Amino acid sequence: MAVGLEPPAQLHPIAGVRLGTAAAGIRKSGKPDLLLMELAEGTTVAAVFTRNQFCAAPVIVARQHLEASGLPRALLVNAGNANAGTGDAGIEAARRSCRAVGAQLDCEAQQVLPFSTGVIGEPLPVDRIEAGLPAAFADCSEDNWLAAARAIMTTDTVAKGVSVRREVDGSAFTVTGIAKGAGMIRPDMATMLAYVATDAKVPTALLQQVLVGGVNRSFNRITIDGDTSTNDACVLVATGKGDVKVTGPGPALDALRDVVNEVCTQLAQAIVRDGEGATKFVTVTVEQGATHEECLQVAYTIAHSPLVKTALFASDPNWGRILAAVGRAGLTDLDVQRVSIHLDQVCIVDRGGRAGTYTEEQGRAVMAQEEILIRVQLGRGEAAEQIWTSDFSYDYVRINAEYRT
Amino acid sequence: MAVGLEPPAQLHPIAGVRLGTAAAGIRKSGKPDLLLMELAEGTTVAAVFTRNQFCAAPVIVARQHLEASGLPRALLVNAGNANAGTGDAGIEAARRSCRAVGAQLDCEAQQVLPFSTGVIGEPLPVDRIEAGLPAAFADCSEDNWLAAARAIMTTDTVAKGVSVRREVDGSAFTVTGIAKGAGMIRPDMATMLAYVATDAKVPTALLQQVLVGGVNRSFNRITIDGDTSTNDACVLVATGKGDVKVTGPGPALDALRDVVNEVCTQLAQAIVRDGEGATKFVTVTVEQGATHEECLQVAYTIAHSPLVKTALFASDPNWGRILAAVGRAGLTDLDVQRVSIHLDQVCIVDRGGRAGTYTEEQGRAVMAQEEILIRVQLGRGEAAEQIWTSDFSYDYVRINAEYRT
Repeated sequence: MAVGLEPPAQLHPIAGVRLGTAAAGIRKSGKPDLLLMELAEGTTVAAVFTRNQFCAAPVIVARQHLEASGLPRALLVNAGNANAGTGDAGIEAARRSCRAVGAQLDCEAQQVLPFSTGVIGEPLPVDRIEAGLPAAFADCSEDNWLAAARAIMTTDTVAKGVSVRREVDGSAFTVTGIAKGAGMIRPDMATMLAYVATDAKVPTALLQQVLVGGVNRSFNRITIDGDTSTNDACVLVATGKGDVKVTGPGPALDALRDVVNEVCTQLAQAIVRDGEGATKFVTVTVEQGATHEECLQVAYTIAHSPLVKTALFASDPNWGRILAAVGRAGLTDLDVQRVSIHLDQVCIVDRGGRAGTYTEEQGRAVMAQEEILIRVQLGRGEAAEQIWTSDFSYDYVRINAEYRT
Repeated sequence: MAVGLEPPAQLHPIAGVRLGTAAAGIRKSGKPDLLLMELAEGTTVAAVFTRNQFCAAPVIVARQHLEASGLPRALLVNAGNANAGTGDAGIEAARRSCRAVGAQLDCEAQQVLPFSTGVIGEPLPVDRIEAGLPAAFADCSEDNWLAAARAIMTTDTVAKGVSVRREVDGSAFTVTGIAKGAGMIRPDMATMLAYVATDAKVPTALLQQVLVGGVNRSFNRITIDGDTSTNDACVLVATGKGDVKVTGPGPALDALRDVVNEVCTQLAQAIVRDGEGATKFVTVTVEQGATHEECLQVAYTIAHSPLVKTALFASDPNWGRILAAVGRAGLTDLDVQRVSIHLDQVCIVDRGGRAGTYTEEQGRAVMAQEEILIRVQLGRGEAAEQIWTSDFSYDYVRINAEYRT
């Protein structure tokens, strides 16, 4: 099902991060659904969360705990239940699960950050989480990244992980990350669940900068269905157990930014490739805009159009739908005579109308591909933006119509 | 397929409006695809058009002709080809079809307004339109409204027409309207194609006011897939052949507004009921907003969410998706503790969380219905808005994946 996506071949361990999973019975399938990430003392943590106003209880509690303690010792993740729309009882359930981790790990409950993903509006079964924790603890090891990626899957069909090693000034550092997400994907400042770790030593404020920069170029540039989740979260931890120390501007910070951006981009693209029902991986590039904002506006209007997405599914070069989407994207002073549109290298729209050189065969050839680039030039300025999306298939409807049955 | 929608039982003729149809071979099916509406001398005409920046050639030409002549004598509509994204050649094709009508009707080409609906980006076959016109002229009669509604259908499954007679001060007037549209529906200031006529006598400026008021409460309050078409147009004509004269504020204007609003609302709802692949007719009401704009923003975010739409298709009371849509609608200062959500009479969310009284059985019972009301109360003010939409089914994907094949 996933487009050009295999499970990760190798995920390097990060010294100072131990991961354990367990099947706690939260997912009906009986598969592992609980993940505990233990962080070595002194690990710095950066995080970004969903901007959905109905953010889930674990998002509220994780924000509070991060603010209160600053130095978390554990992340607790469950799949199968989002603990969203659950009111005060949901908040208490999230806190209780943190207390349970704290008791076992001998740390404050506030040093535990909770995360949940799954169905919205059902009470979180804390009893099962508490009962499953000892097994997760017993399972903890630095080599468990792939199992961790599997434990947080919901409608994902492929586990998502990326790992990169880089040298800087003769020392090496590693960044390893995992993510889940296949539907309700239109991140806003953060995304689904993604956990990225490095063994470099990085102060918290700098780590947060690196994370925000990386997220904005990756998770905040993808959309599957335009629906921003209540539970999106992306966490970057730095254990400082390796040789590389990042203290401020310089080659080490540049290298870390580079690698974090690369890991986040690959994870974000993996989410799109595994988008619910996806048969195509589509890059939408909008160039020559007056502002970055308007480039994104046009790109998302194309990427969210059900008509464009069903044409992509059908491999039908029905480019009129792309043109119509550009036209309704809210750029009221758009001079359509200056607009051109390409499918990969094929020019389909030139100066606002069908390109003279265009043939239906050219369009069909591009649309038949699994990976497609839609490139729009607005002829208004210098700004450019790029996002990634998938198509709309029968399976998208099936998966979302049957999700709770 | 259409939800609670039958073809119109009776469409009253409007004195001064003669309609003729023909099969010109523009649609592959060979069904009638050409409509000519002859307007008696002295008929006033009001119109609103799409705000899509890539508006179609006929929209550009119709606007120019309306401005230049003020008193059109004929409307020419073809289905099967939108004449959009066709550049200068498309403009010339639209003008040529107007000249052909003018020659037969012995009026200026500028007194003819052209309209097209169908595939975007293909050259308009003007030869076929010219060849089909004599048959359409020969067919012209005041009793042809139902045939006219049929001739402008594309993916519509049911012909759409509404007719209302009303008395005011002892005299009667009639309003009859037809519309087409089932996909690419998210009108902006106007909609798909809709033609409404009355035998009342109404000066043009007043007629335009009546039309804009009516459209804003009807066609501008529906969405099927969020895609604003390049060709939307709604025309209201007043022949003045009846007994009622509207000259300014008073009971006659009030009655006309009332009836035009009613006809437009019924036509707009008919379009949603016949939405591509629709199995549900859904009313979304947002109340207690600070402004009308934010009510619409929330309502459209719900109505466009693919996750809400697939849950509606599945009759699944997965109300978490509605809550998530409210939360991402862009109201940054929303106090979720004041939000409540009802499905028909069933309270599902109270003060931001699952209502204590709610049971899954209650939700299932409402979602099993063909017609569903989603009511959101924001707890921020006095404004309220209402829109109509449909669900997302396998057939939506099928219809739009196969549209050009």
